[in-house]
Amino acid sequence: MKSINIGIVGYGTVGHGVVNLLRNNNELIKQNSNININLCGIADRNINRKIDDNIKNVDILTIDPIELINDPSVDIIVELIGGINEARYIISESIKKGKHIVTANKSLLATHGYKLFKLADEYNVLMGFEGAVAGGIPIIRVLKEDMCVNDIREIYAILNGTCNYILTQMELQKSEFENVLLEAQQAGYAESDPAFDIEGIDSAHKLAIIASIAFNTMVSIKQVYVEGISKVKHIDIELAEELNGKIKLLAIAKRNQNNIEVRVHPTIIPKRYFLADVMDVYNAVYIRTSKVDRTMHYGRGAGGLPTGSAVVADILSIAKDISFCDKKRVPILGYNNSYNEESNICDINDIVSTFYLRFTVDDQPSVLSKITGILGEHNISIVSAIQRGEWLRNGIIPLVLITHETEGRNIFNSVERIDKLPFVRDKTLVMRVER
Amino acid sequence: MKSINIGIVGYGTVGHGVVNLLRNNNELIKQNSNININLCGIADRNINRKIDDNIKNVDILTIDPIELINDPSVDIIVELIGGINEARYIISESIKKGKHIVTANKSLLATHGYKLFKLADEYNVLMGFEGAVAGGIPIIRVLKEDMCVNDIREIYAILNGTCNYILTQMELQKSEFENVLLEAQQAGYAESDPAFDIEGIDSAHKLAIIASIAFNTMVSIKQVYVEGISKVKHIDIELAEELNGKIKLLAIAKRNQNNIEVRVHPTIIPKRYFLADVMDVYNAVYIRTSKVDRTMHYGRGAGGLPTGSAVVADILSIAKDISFCDKKRVPILGYNNSYNEESNICDINDIVSTFYLRFTVDDQPSVLSKITGILGEHNISIVSAIQRGEWLRNGIIPLVLITHETEGRNIFNSVERIDKLPFVRDKTLVMRVER
Repeated sequence: MKSINIGIVGYGTVGHGVVNLLRNNNELIKQNSNININLCGIADRNINRKIDDNIKNVDILTIDPIELINDPSVDIIVELIGGINEARYIISESIKKGKHIVTANKSLLATHGYKLFKLADEYNVLMGFEGAVAGGIPIIRVLKEDMCVNDIREIYAILNGTCNYILTQMELQKSEFENVLLEAQQAGYAESDPAFDIEGIDSAHKLAIIASIAFNTMVSIKQVYVEGISKVKHIDIELAEELNGKIKLLAIAKRNQNNIEVRVHPTIIPKRYFLADVMDVYNAVYIRTSKVDRTMHYGRGAGGLPTGSAVVADILSIAKDISFCDKKRVPILGYNNSYNEESNICDINDIVSTFYLRFTVDDQPSVLSKITGILGEHNISIVSAIQRGEWLRNGIIPLVLITHETEGRNIFNSVERIDKLPFVRDKTLVMRVER
Repeated sequence: MKSINIGIVGYGTVGHGVVNLLRNNNELIKQNSNININLCGIADRNINRKIDDNIKNVDILTIDPIELINDPSVDIIVELIGGINEARYIISESIKKGKHIVTANKSLLATHGYKLFKLADEYNVLMGFEGAVAGGIPIIRVLKEDMCVNDIREIYAILNGTCNYILTQMELQKSEFENVLLEAQQAGYAESDPAFDIEGIDSAHKLAIIASIAFNTMVSIKQVYVEGISKVKHIDIELAEELNGKIKLLAIAKRNQNNIEVRVHPTIIPKRYFLADVMDVYNAVYIRTSKVDRTMHYGRGAGGLPTGSAVVADILSIAKDISFCDKKRVPILGYNNSYNEESNICDINDIVSTFYLRFTVDDQPSVLSKITGILGEHNISIVSAIQRGEWLRNGIIPLVLITHETEGRNIFNSVERIDKLPFVRDKTLVMRVER
């Protein structure tokens, strides 16, 4: 029986999940693949206080990943430390030593992916990263292999469990963003520094990776337009409900005639959409393709075992390829290219949508006429205006306008002007409305 | 560049889809896999009147599949004729000639799958059948590969588009089964002989296949308990609505402590379930596993292009395996076994559920007491009874009872007795209620 040696860098939540899964499924894996997956080393900067029964017999337990990388017996390096610089160094060095790579590191792949993919091709090593996007939902393989004869037309996805949990709980508890965030931090669903999640950056990383696969062209994090959910208030969720909708942080990728749209922003979607029913920390990816048409893929987007399960599936797939195949079966992104092209991305200013605008204004005469006057100068017409006496607090009141379809630039330009008016008391919340 | 020769048997809806996809993606496939997929023959009993521009240059166009099977240059036989006996003969003969197999034939695999899988292993050929279950939803590969280190705990699925279309339209149009069926036949969503779909047999075939993969043990169609939807009336859909539920034809597979449940029956499910929102001809598969927990996979379950896309993904996967690999990467069902064991299946009589019972009775005194008396003798207690004056037609009126949880045998035995009572005018509708 063939033995494949793996070294894990990073023994945190996902690392524990992977070790646990490999330990408990060792016999099953042998029986079904005729391969012995041998965990021969773990590197972690705090390995000394993390040694437990699961790993105490592992040959190499080290604080130095280079020790694993330099070990000629290691076939696959599993990078699970996250972050960019150190992880990039570890993966690059591993590739140069001919090691195959499995990683769950979305920020690294969304930032420097194309360099690493190119390096991997140069050294003829394989890379798996199913765990980097949507944890336990096997979306990478679906896009790379199952949809291989489809043009992907559009992807609408909920890719960040923290944001989805906060929005769900704001609705259920009729509570404000800050309170739910605090609670999410206490429950371990949000980091102590939550900016990465709540400002949409994590979703944008994941979107860059799936868009790169879906559209056969590299999309990097810099090209993704990002807005987070920190300005959303409970009143917005209530009003979305009145519009028969829900607010979700959507990651959207579309192929247009001449370019690609990649954007992450809070969006009001109709309740009849499946995505509207995705609650709490769950993720979901809706895909529309040329041949298979619509599909939806739903599950847990994070956690040691869901993400660990994706990582182990990648390890096994690579182990089979290197044991039984003499050529790469599937290109790293599902298609052969030089990873050089920067994609042609649609300017967010050009994207036409219906908008929900919540202004925070002094309760005084002619506010509505001044605001709608400016909107009118930018060719924006209004479908409905909502203001209610009970919203008044200390002389300040929200004013909500829903627009007809208009280009993003009209909204950005007019809101910039409106936010400078003396009676406007806070930055205006801008959300797109899907119908 | 490696060339792989394929022969297609059956040039119907899916056959056309496959040919169309191969023609349009030939260059893309070459570029991304370094393989040329060469369509070298098509067999169809009516080939002479089906020759079109897409196939007129194909080398072998024949009415006799044996001509393709005997051609030593053919690497993969793609069986798309459906049905059992002829297809079985074609696949067996192909395997014996060392051809690899791609098929979308669920009835064959659910009936004789284990013999064909065993034969394929004996001749060391590969078999792909992603198109056999849920068309464009890549559920076979998810279960075989992505969930490889998971115990599958339960599967709830909508696997038949015809039934789901009929139930959806009965609700939307407030119409009766017979009318919607006729309309579905006219729209091409139902066969002229619809029994196979509406009696649940098609769903049961598909369930047998996915249960065989999910539970690492062969499940054949004979072992699946089946009830169809032909007795469901609009009144049932209305009452399900009042219970905040929807009626769906569910295919359910569960792993219990000592056995497996595999059953297809109309079921009232809560509206909050994703499956409740699956409309018209769409399919969906909900899976709960030990590690990844819940996932849902949704899409088109049939049609030339969705199913064709799954068939082409299988063709490509096998083409890569035989071009680049010297050993089978993944066992036919995802696990190695001898395909001999018949699974230990839970008796439907033992399965505990809440039941919805609709009796059709004469409008006369003491009917309720006699029926509930018999139910009581079988230890069935009632949660609610519903009867409305406006339901009365020609002296006959429906009576609906919802039970507490009870074993199936209690329901079957008591309903058998009740259906013999002189005031009972039609067979009683029995549906399970999920909570």
